[in-house]
Amino acid sequence: MKLYGYWRSSAAYRVRIALNLKQLSFENLPVHLIKNGGEQHSISYKALNPAELVPTFTDGDISLNQSLAIIEYLEEMYPEPALLPQDPAAKAKVRALALDIACDIHPLNNLRVLQYLSGTLALTDEAKTAWIQHWLHTGFNALEQRLRRSAGQYCFADTLTLADICLVPQVYNAQRFALDMTAYPIISAIHHHCQQLAAFALAAPEQQPDAQ
Amino acid sequence: MKLYGYWRSSAAYRVRIALNLKQLSFENLPVHLIKNGGEQHSISYKALNPAELVPTFTDGDISLNQSLAIIEYLEEMYPEPALLPQDPAAKAKVRALALDIACDIHPLNNLRVLQYLSGTLALTDEAKTAWIQHWLHTGFNALEQRLRRSAGQYCFADTLTLADICLVPQVYNAQRFALDMTAYPIISAIHHHCQQLAAFALAAPEQQPDAQ
Repeated sequence: MKLYGYWRSSAAYRVRIALNLKQLSFENLPVHLIKNGGEQHSISYKALNPAELVPTFTDGDISLNQSLAIIEYLEEMYPEPALLPQDPAAKAKVRALALDIACDIHPLNNLRVLQYLSGTLALTDEAKTAWIQHWLHTGFNALEQRLRRSAGQYCFADTLTLADICLVPQVYNAQRFALDMTAYPIISAIHHHCQQLAAFALAAPEQQPDAQ
Repeated sequence: MKLYGYWRSSAAYRVRIALNLKQLSFENLPVHLIKNGGEQHSISYKALNPAELVPTFTDGDISLNQSLAIIEYLEEMYPEPALLPQDPAAKAKVRALALDIACDIHPLNNLRVLQYLSGTLALTDEAKTAWIQHWLHTGFNALEQRLRRSAGQYCFADTLTLADICLVPQVYNAQRFALDMTAYPIISAIHHHCQQLAAFALAAPEQQPDAQ
């Protein structure tokens, strides 16, 4: 198995956590999103992933993009430990929490969006930071309220799931942008619990070979 | 079953298509996203969905948000007709195509983002239209390339799947913003095929009771 990613990409970070939790070994292939105008725009990478985004995951002849599709594939092929509950309603709740992050928070603060804000729209650093913090606060505020109903030690009671795999990289991003987390005690506690696990610690951006 | 949605919300539109394909009857409860400052921000709706977004779906005591989580729930509870292939790799491909739309295209042109662009950032209509079209072209360009490998009559060969359910509302949005679709013949052909099906036609925004 090969994972084309970038140390700071939170979508690649999610897949690294899932691979580690399932104790699967994989080849980590860095795609530098900044250097040389962004290696994700190279002809060779575009042939692999026409969206020019990371991650891309390959398993023999199978090539997949989209972190959540990759993790669901891993879940079906390597069911232990389970990252989703068996009960359909519980499973849907966990998927919804993961999508709250993957659809409603992360896409708005992705590198290509920030490049459009500072490039095409010529926003000041202050306006760009306000944009980043606005969408993080909007998303975390809703998520914290949902977690009041569902969380235990992790997002969904005391079981580690796909939702936690999405949450930790998003909190990493928030910390990078110096977001005040005091309004999010549940998110912060879950993040802290996850950080104690080797699968999460080893997947951290700073632990990757391409970290700077 | 109840679906809280809005006629023009493409996330609600996806769920309507899935419900129709599975021939499930549901109560359609409109939440007007513009009127009265946006009914999704009302106290009663926030209690149901703290993200203040549509759709929200309820099935008895079960309340779910996130269109893809709702559709996966329907898929498990009402497996016929299947909206995902059985084979894990094929299933992952379909999910990835759906997420290409739900994570990489739709969130950037959502109502709340356009409100931020014209409100907080005070963009001109021209700059706002350029933003909308940029992300639609970026996303459709990548998708068209992927579909060259996977599509038949539908996104994944000749089987109707979750990917088509996401594609049709996104094309509706693109048409609304007068996007030139000539560079996307495969997307356009799939859209045309789907429009012939009653499940899609009945789910169309203009067919909803709250359509204006």
